[in-house]
Amino acid sequence: MLKLKAKSLKIEAGKAIVILHRDDAEELSVHMSDRVLISCGKKSITAILDLSDDGIGKGHIGLFDEARKDIGAKEGSIVKVKVAEKPASVQFIKKKLDGSELNSKEMEAIVKDVVNENLSDVELSTFVAASYIRGYSMNETAALTNAIVNIGEHIDFGDHVVDKHCIGGVAANRTTMLVVPIVASAGLKMPKTSSRSITSPAGTADTMEVLCPVNHSVKKIQSIVKSSGGCIVWTGAVNLAPADDKIIRVRHPLSLDPQGMLLASIMAKKKSVGSDYVVIDIPVGKGAKIGDINTGKDLAHKFIELGDKIGIKVDCIVTDGSAPIGNGIGPALEAKDVLNALKGEGSKELVDKSCDIAGKLFEMVGKAKEGKGREMAIEILRSGKADKKMREIIKAQGGNPKIKPDDIKIGPEKVDVKSKGTGKIKHIDNKTISRIAKTAGAPKDKSAGIYKYVNVGQEVHIGDVLYTIYAKSKEKLKEALEIASKTPGVDLGGVILEEIE
Amino acid sequence: MLKLKAKSLKIEAGKAIVILHRDDAEELSVHMSDRVLISCGKKSITAILDLSDDGIGKGHIGLFDEARKDIGAKEGSIVKVKVAEKPASVQFIKKKLDGSELNSKEMEAIVKDVVNENLSDVELSTFVAASYIRGYSMNETAALTNAIVNIGEHIDFGDHVVDKHCIGGVAANRTTMLVVPIVASAGLKMPKTSSRSITSPAGTADTMEVLCPVNHSVKKIQSIVKSSGGCIVWTGAVNLAPADDKIIRVRHPLSLDPQGMLLASIMAKKKSVGSDYVVIDIPVGKGAKIGDINTGKDLAHKFIELGDKIGIKVDCIVTDGSAPIGNGIGPALEAKDVLNALKGEGSKELVDKSCDIAGKLFEMVGKAKEGKGREMAIEILRSGKADKKMREIIKAQGGNPKIKPDDIKIGPEKVDVKSKGTGKIKHIDNKTISRIAKTAGAPKDKSAGIYKYVNVGQEVHIGDVLYTIYAKSKEKLKEALEIASKTPGVDLGGVILEEIE
Repeated sequence: MLKLKAKSLKIEAGKAIVILHRDDAEELSVHMSDRVLISCGKKSITAILDLSDDGIGKGHIGLFDEARKDIGAKEGSIVKVKVAEKPASVQFIKKKLDGSELNSKEMEAIVKDVVNENLSDVELSTFVAASYIRGYSMNETAALTNAIVNIGEHIDFGDHVVDKHCIGGVAANRTTMLVVPIVASAGLKMPKTSSRSITSPAGTADTMEVLCPVNHSVKKIQSIVKSSGGCIVWTGAVNLAPADDKIIRVRHPLSLDPQGMLLASIMAKKKSVGSDYVVIDIPVGKGAKIGDINTGKDLAHKFIELGDKIGIKVDCIVTDGSAPIGNGIGPALEAKDVLNALKGEGSKELVDKSCDIAGKLFEMVGKAKEGKGREMAIEILRSGKADKKMREIIKAQGGNPKIKPDDIKIGPEKVDVKSKGTGKIKHIDNKTISRIAKTAGAPKDKSAGIYKYVNVGQEVHIGDVLYTIYAKSKEKLKEALEIASKTPGVDLGGVILEEIE
Repeated sequence: MLKLKAKSLKIEAGKAIVILHRDDAEELSVHMSDRVLISCGKKSITAILDLSDDGIGKGHIGLFDEARKDIGAKEGSIVKVKVAEKPASVQFIKKKLDGSELNSKEMEAIVKDVVNENLSDVELSTFVAASYIRGYSMNETAALTNAIVNIGEHIDFGDHVVDKHCIGGVAANRTTMLVVPIVASAGLKMPKTSSRSITSPAGTADTMEVLCPVNHSVKKIQSIVKSSGGCIVWTGAVNLAPADDKIIRVRHPLSLDPQGMLLASIMAKKKSVGSDYVVIDIPVGKGAKIGDINTGKDLAHKFIELGDKIGIKVDCIVTDGSAPIGNGIGPALEAKDVLNALKGEGSKELVDKSCDIAGKLFEMVGKAKEGKGREMAIEILRSGKADKKMREIIKAQGGNPKIKPDDIKIGPEKVDVKSKGTGKIKHIDNKTISRIAKTAGAPKDKSAGIYKYVNVGQEVHIGDVLYTIYAKSKEKLKEALEIASKTPGVDLGGVILEEIE
């Protein structure tokens, strides 16, 4: 055991990390990334070790904010340091690495240590890599899902709850913002928690935020849903799945999507809000997350099986994800699209797909007979009830219920991208379109993005405007245009396109 | 691109890490652990991103020492920050994760990015986990070995070079310190680079350091070997395999030993010093690193095959690793043992095993006929030539060539551990004995450790002294004794033992 003088580093590390001089670490026989038990007075915690040759002098201990606060140390306080045992979950990570199945107690121990920041990046990344290569049995996936649910916050709506989820990868796929008001109009409870963009030009939460605040407490969400039947709020504002958020952080650098983790991540959030019926939208096709229909179907069966195990009735729809849905791409442009669609105008694909999903939910809960759900959804939309409901929700969330599509600011800078050839459009690439919209500033600049005028299968002539790029500044517009000039994302089959301002 | 004000954090991070405020990171669309290109004036580097909510204010960038020095920024300097592309090696890590074989160019790219600190802990750990689960083909192992060799320092001795290596796990296995002088006495060149302890009570470098300095430059090593024919120096003082050192750092927390990495790690260091003939000692048995002889044999064949591929003639010996070799455990106690053995006294097993290894080397280079190498080694030892040679080496490395076993300080605190029963010793456990010696202070306290008086198969009576624990302080002695009281590490088959001071 060593007694060292505290040196406050005055920065956060994201977890309890301390720094020792290399000689002091040697004295304790501890190495980089080992765990040490540190205490000051009566408070004691486990921290992860970093080493320094001269930043921290011998006899001192550098404390990042988390560690310093946890033990209540001040500059110069005496901190006792000794070797800590590894948490048991490290053994379970090793077990998974070696190819064994983890039981629910083991999965729970890992999730608990993830949330309590007891695992280093090295250990957590190893767990993700092991999960990716070894895969999960359905029991393991259910165990992970339940562990994530149990350690997070729960919201009770005192009633049956319906929900939807799209596994993503398709630009402008804003069906949630139509499904929620359609379904709520029919008296169903749909408390939708949505994510912000991670790598796309807009998440549903980013788009909804154009119309009203999305950052609400659990209590506020309960009151919104009580009064309106539905809501569209940001998942991140409630602590539904803290374990998942932390796992995603180390999945991100290598874009690792272990299937079991993907399933657990989605379904845990549904379970946390008490969902009973869920429709999962699985877009497949060129440029989507999932390339072929068989992989999509396989994933669908897994969602249904996992739902069974955790008490949620799941239906899946495998949809065409080969091109963006809707015309606007970027928060403001998508919000405009949604308001238009609620008035019976706007993108046909967006309306069609949303009515498919809402219809499925009506059939699942028995509001409509099999095969009749879609008609019911279309009728609700046509009647104006969904538009009215959406404005109720916008108001309940603190927005202006009278907002019109033209009230939404876009741009102000813009440039048209025109076709350099004549022919039939073969493919509109989600990834390229997203990249251009992001370069233009979306989702951080809500008014930035793309408005596209064309769809796959459509004939275009040389000089026809394919889409308009919107940006907040000339500089960002130029950057986006540079990409669009090289790879416009709209494929006529070998014909290149050019842009004219 | 953002322009931010530099804030020096005045600590090292081990690699180029910078901290941004969460809002600035969002503005740039970058996430925790992403890479950013930072520049100040004309200097620019890639750094790994950390995020802060309030430790680093908006508009500022927190710079750990490495990043600050690399771009030559001062407190308040303007630092330009933009998104950096991931290095190509991240793709290759993903490829390995997905089960494909890496070619030598890909392996080289990974090793280069490891040495240049271009990979985050998350990425490097993922590579280790992927290597562990997927395994390596012999081509991949050879590619990794060559990549590690090519990026590190080389030492040329202008002659054939012989070497030995033990894969470890057996306490007090100090054969190197006998093999080097025996072999060098016969005119062979044996420039041995050895490691310090990582998890054991002593590495060969720690033990040799009791007799003379082991921290020498490449030039000095060349001159020692030129004058004495051999040396025993610390690997860490020369930059032979910097890539390996960095990989080992993330292997340590989960004790991951992917076989391909183990092979590459060992053989790269041999290749770097120009070894032509190498004997690998693979101890197997209860309590050793490798439990059964078949696994040991399999590993032996891999060493031989890898040697073939990289131009080193390898012979392997699979040895009994079920109990400590020699009597002393801990740097000073082991050094004493070695000096005694060189005088023809001391542990019979240590002498036997060392002569086996030296004899093998004699046969490999043609100094002795097949089956006659061991005799030659024994004769050299018996003649006093090896003792004389060792003292030549000690002198060349800067130590006292006249040192006697009794000159070596041990303790000063000590306690005898006695047998509580009567019977035949069934097992002496390497791990337990090592743990007690480490708790007593070894290898940091060079004079601490264990001296054991008994061997497996020996009859002991109640009250017989099994071993003495030595420590620098009463406190450490007490801690070690506490463990020895519960688990003495000497197994009579169910009889427990007690200690009497």
